[in-house]
Amino acid sequence: MTWRPPTVGIVGAGQLARMTIQAAIPLDVRIVLLAADVDDSAAQIAPRVIVGSPDDRETLKDLAQRSDVITFDHELVNPASLAWLEAAGHQVWPSPSTMALAQDKRRQRRELGDAGFPMPSYANIDCLDALLAFGEGYDWRVVVKASSGGYDGRGVWMVDSPAEAEAVWRGAKSSGTVLLAEERLPLDLEFAILLARTPGGEIAVYPPVETVQRDGICHELRVPARIDADLGMEATRIARKIAEQIGMVGILGIEFFVSRGELYLNELAPRPHNSGHWTIDGAVTSQFEQHLRAVLDLPLGSPEQTGQAIVTLNLLGRGTADDPRFRLAEGLAAGDAHVHFYGKKARAGRKIGHVTAIDNSIEAASVRVWAVRNALFDVSGL
Amino acid sequence: MTWRPPTVGIVGAGQLARMTIQAAIPLDVRIVLLAADVDDSAAQIAPRVIVGSPDDRETLKDLAQRSDVITFDHELVNPASLAWLEAAGHQVWPSPSTMALAQDKRRQRRELGDAGFPMPSYANIDCLDALLAFGEGYDWRVVVKASSGGYDGRGVWMVDSPAEAEAVWRGAKSSGTVLLAEERLPLDLEFAILLARTPGGEIAVYPPVETVQRDGICHELRVPARIDADLGMEATRIARKIAEQIGMVGILGIEFFVSRGELYLNELAPRPHNSGHWTIDGAVTSQFEQHLRAVLDLPLGSPEQTGQAIVTLNLLGRGTADDPRFRLAEGLAAGDAHVHFYGKKARAGRKIGHVTAIDNSIEAASVRVWAVRNALFDVSGL
Repeated sequence: MTWRPPTVGIVGAGQLARMTIQAAIPLDVRIVLLAADVDDSAAQIAPRVIVGSPDDRETLKDLAQRSDVITFDHELVNPASLAWLEAAGHQVWPSPSTMALAQDKRRQRRELGDAGFPMPSYANIDCLDALLAFGEGYDWRVVVKASSGGYDGRGVWMVDSPAEAEAVWRGAKSSGTVLLAEERLPLDLEFAILLARTPGGEIAVYPPVETVQRDGICHELRVPARIDADLGMEATRIARKIAEQIGMVGILGIEFFVSRGELYLNELAPRPHNSGHWTIDGAVTSQFEQHLRAVLDLPLGSPEQTGQAIVTLNLLGRGTADDPRFRLAEGLAAGDAHVHFYGKKARAGRKIGHVTAIDNSIEAASVRVWAVRNALFDVSGL
Repeated sequence: MTWRPPTVGIVGAGQLARMTIQAAIPLDVRIVLLAADVDDSAAQIAPRVIVGSPDDRETLKDLAQRSDVITFDHELVNPASLAWLEAAGHQVWPSPSTMALAQDKRRQRRELGDAGFPMPSYANIDCLDALLAFGEGYDWRVVVKASSGGYDGRGVWMVDSPAEAEAVWRGAKSSGTVLLAEERLPLDLEFAILLARTPGGEIAVYPPVETVQRDGICHELRVPARIDADLGMEATRIARKIAEQIGMVGILGIEFFVSRGELYLNELAPRPHNSGHWTIDGAVTSQFEQHLRAVLDLPLGSPEQTGQAIVTLNLLGRGTADDPRFRLAEGLAAGDAHVHFYGKKARAGRKIGHVTAIDNSIEAASVRVWAVRNALFDVSGL
């Protein structure tokens, strides 16, 4: 019997796919990408690329026929098309129904709320009056979200007044965006639980990671998270239950708030997650290898951290004229840290890479990643 | 100014090139391979491959024109061709003269011996009588080597009698192989020093790694090596001096013997080295990233080990019918270890992958890698 490497088809070719390709090499797993453009982050380094759109069923079918299992770099895929692929006998992980739930924040809130998980108060917003009433009820400390399609701060609006509410409502109405509103909680901190689950139900949970947000974009990751052990255990318990409830297969990232010492569920992402980038250099098994193992129904690896304190800093673009790749030598000279570039142009605010350092304390690791990041951009401070 | 990723051309497309490609991804460094075959280990996962032979100068020139610097997966390249490339203005690291030295064991012994480094006794063998006299002089405890072209036990003969000497001599004569003979020392153990050196002379030295050989093939790596600290420091000092003497740029692996408590220089390899595979999972900076940094004249990373004890076991083929890739699930279930497959058919005795485990002791890590390896091959013991 001749060996044929298992092939994983990935819808999307961003940095998550790029880092998955890296993890696939030692396992002798092949990756086929469905990229929007030959120059996409992952497509630059991949020998097997289909250029096209997942909106086109023939393109999806082409990907499926070249793959043993299909998985995702992003959530922007029509669940009906995925169900159609599954019905044609192709393996799709996470399942089309899990993907559908992930794309629909209203349904997420309803189903997870019904199951009794702790969440901020929320309301579906189908008319301006509903939004005005919700805002009034929460003293205009509310956040309005697009029910689908948002990421990295897009599709999220902090709304502090009736005037702002009206502006958001009109914008959403003109673009056909479906909204929900949530109570904006006073935050002690935010953290995430990342886990992997196999088709057979094996689960491996990574230690909680503190996520420092800025302008709606995750900016810095810290392991260990500065939360009570009890709270971490409770979040882990909730994450496991959600993974089972939604039939997750692959990496699931679940974001939590801590507000006045209490735990609240924020959002979930059924794929390798920005909050897991620390695992590449700081855990026994990286989230990307773990995702491949899960979707290929292989035993999971240890999710343990390998160092005492791990800090990952996202590199956010400051404009294409200020591309940190020109300053790699300066960055590497500034301290020992793992620099990861995504092969993306340095447009302002765009995630173009990350830097991870491991040390004896969060403070020491943080000093190191900031030194490297500042050298990469030739700036000091933030 | 638009970013253009630096491109490294690699002559050869074996597992060293494959693992270098993996290390190149986060640095946004492009790799172009010169492969003998599209199905070579590294070519399977590379988007940029030239298929051809480095014996053909036009092919080498093609590689050079697509690369900012040329480096190597193996030593089987004509140094004159490399000098020709260099004269045409192409950057070649290690330099053609370093590559020439690495290919000529006679010259290595002479130049390093002249420099006063401790070595086993040796003699160039240009006639059968010279070999018989050498064998007599060392009580027929001798090893005969091809001066160039040998690797993984090929081109090395243990010679215990005049009859064996004559057989080796006749075989070498008929194939035109140039020989040298060395005293076969009683070995306490073998270890290697791996270092990286940049064009500007920055050097980073990895901790000594114990190399357990079997049938002339490196079988198991152990860090820390069980050698006296003094001996390790002396070997490190020697390794640094050699790197400077030969003008090394890139990773240099230097093998040492310990015989009756004394240190002896064995061989050197001017490239990422089997004895450095533990660094992928067990050092702050892997030898492959370090090699890229060196040949691109970037600052080097820390060579420190990240765990207390690290053991790497080479996976040696047991016949193509017994391909461990079929048993990946069993291997991963057998214990937490990093499995690395090279995408190679499992021919008997061939290096087809390696497994690394990190633990609190060499014993614990060793138990783990052997458990995984035995599960991958469905055997017990050796």
